[in-house]
Amino acid sequence: MSRYLNNKYVSLEEYVPGEQPKDMRYVKLNTNESPFPPSERVVEAIDSEAVKQLKLYSDPDASELREKIAGLFGYEKENVFVSNGSDDILNFSFMAFCGRGEHSVVFPDISYGFYKVYAELHGAEYTQIPLREDFSIDPEDYVGIGKNIVIANPNAPTGLALSRAAIERIVASNPDNLVLIDEAYVDFGAESAVGLVNKYDNLMVVRTFSKSYSLAGARLGFAIASESLISDLNKIKFSTNPYNINRLSMIAGCRAIEDNAYYMNNCKIIARTRRNVTEELRALGFEVLDSRANFIFARTPDISGEELYSELKKRGVLIRHFKTERIKDFNRITIGTDDEMNVFLRSVKEILGRI
Amino acid sequence: MSRYLNNKYVSLEEYVPGEQPKDMRYVKLNTNESPFPPSERVVEAIDSEAVKQLKLYSDPDASELREKIAGLFGYEKENVFVSNGSDDILNFSFMAFCGRGEHSVVFPDISYGFYKVYAELHGAEYTQIPLREDFSIDPEDYVGIGKNIVIANPNAPTGLALSRAAIERIVASNPDNLVLIDEAYVDFGAESAVGLVNKYDNLMVVRTFSKSYSLAGARLGFAIASESLISDLNKIKFSTNPYNINRLSMIAGCRAIEDNAYYMNNCKIIARTRRNVTEELRALGFEVLDSRANFIFARTPDISGEELYSELKKRGVLIRHFKTERIKDFNRITIGTDDEMNVFLRSVKEILGRI
Repeated sequence: MSRYLNNKYVSLEEYVPGEQPKDMRYVKLNTNESPFPPSERVVEAIDSEAVKQLKLYSDPDASELREKIAGLFGYEKENVFVSNGSDDILNFSFMAFCGRGEHSVVFPDISYGFYKVYAELHGAEYTQIPLREDFSIDPEDYVGIGKNIVIANPNAPTGLALSRAAIERIVASNPDNLVLIDEAYVDFGAESAVGLVNKYDNLMVVRTFSKSYSLAGARLGFAIASESLISDLNKIKFSTNPYNINRLSMIAGCRAIEDNAYYMNNCKIIARTRRNVTEELRALGFEVLDSRANFIFARTPDISGEELYSELKKRGVLIRHFKTERIKDFNRITIGTDDEMNVFLRSVKEILGRI
Repeated sequence: MSRYLNNKYVSLEEYVPGEQPKDMRYVKLNTNESPFPPSERVVEAIDSEAVKQLKLYSDPDASELREKIAGLFGYEKENVFVSNGSDDILNFSFMAFCGRGEHSVVFPDISYGFYKVYAELHGAEYTQIPLREDFSIDPEDYVGIGKNIVIANPNAPTGLALSRAAIERIVASNPDNLVLIDEAYVDFGAESAVGLVNKYDNLMVVRTFSKSYSLAGARLGFAIASESLISDLNKIKFSTNPYNINRLSMIAGCRAIEDNAYYMNNCKIIARTRRNVTEELRALGFEVLDSRANFIFARTPDISGEELYSELKKRGVLIRHFKTERIKDFNRITIGTDDEMNVFLRSVKEILGRI
């Protein structure tokens, strides 16, 4: 730390991304990436002509991309905000809408680790509402709470989802507060709240191209909400980094939406693999939560979460372990291809002495 | 504006990017882009294999890119910060280092418009120090001022530069404050302060790939400073958007540095064209400031700045006009290819009735 840093950030604890070790080639099941490449249309569109055009700035209005996204969900361009990954949108949202008093915010105690970082970063008052004993979110905890609300649906790292009806009850009962639903993983089997946006002006749905659209490395996220909420996000974007989406990611996003069927089919394949892996792990004595995401969250009485993580890493398989007290027995395992999951399962059996 | 927006941003005035009209094909001399494409090595490196790898997150540590940049300037990776365009770095710097009291900040009254936006956004106390009558920066205004300092060198939109000795005097006389030198345009003919970084731990030099490296659309900027200042910037980055550089821009940046000679030669061509255009405009009665950047700043008593801008736009030539009182007679004209500048000059002559 330098002696020039603003005091308010001195004790800030930054987010720790999933590890990306380079010492050997791993079966990488730790950062919820897609095992499938971007579609052919995306690969073909990013050609040498597109690269040569990098000499020019990208469109700060992101018109084509916003129109494509709007078209997919039956909204107008003015209901769509796009930015450099959904983390960027979450950051802007905490910045724009969360603060002290009437702007305070609540989110589950076990959820995406960045919510707490953003609340701290922007000096927002926040409350972390405990998940139920079974790690599910109790929607009643949020009904009529009168504070801004951030919920990941499905939640991470549990993978458990709320129904659209439960989300609607939360949104409808807090009309004077923003309800942000982070749907990073929704395409893998949960109900989306996107259809509620034209009914409630306090609802913002945040999505990403990083998971179901195989574009984690392109950095592309979007939000769907009322025109006035979107204009607030644009105000923050145009006060920080108006050209924040590069030209090639813009092209990738547009072409990916045209190939929507390819990506939705990949999600079905992931869901099928998830079901198989869940069954296999349960047969081995694991408790596996009922995931609707592209990962599973599992523990076993036979080995600690940390030890399973370490033993798998030695065998070239990376999964994600969190040291947080309440979930330290668990690991989060990304669903890869069937081949990758077979390597994972074989390694687990070996570690548990079941081979 | 929604009714959920945090009060502190209600009166915030966002930055207005240079216009990107789509109604016709323009000779685009309004946003200081390079007329030259990225080098062959960049074009070849972004191939279909690289696009397929977009399914994976980019390296949040940006190791290869930081090492390449460090190597170019004779520093270590720990002295280099990279982010999603230099705007991103300026924003992080105002956020991290500027605020009230001892963290207040000064910058010239006529300079990059974003400095004021960032100061307002992050609630920093700021003073805008007037340029001299001839639009140059008086370094004495900043010597021993005891506040954070932000100076673009060369300055925008004037194009005028300070010597390295003048910058050093400012840096050395304010040891308890950050001095940020924004060198977006330095490669076109000014003296860089990069070599002073290992002598002064309060100096940060900010650079971009958008101008001299023909990568405006890739969004890539970097800062060179002491390890402790860089670690502060990383703390902010890892608290907002750790993966903020996408995979393809990361590749483009690495390969561009390997082709440094190509880009530095382009800068020489731009400087030669700039000299020719300056002479031609002066012969037409224009006052043209002595630019060290890839643009010139010029006015003439024969037509108002706004009218010249409008008349050129009608003829398919875009230049940048600012409505700020002190510089409203001027226009900022990006240096394009010789052909583009000939179209510009012919149009100017036509408008002034000199053909």
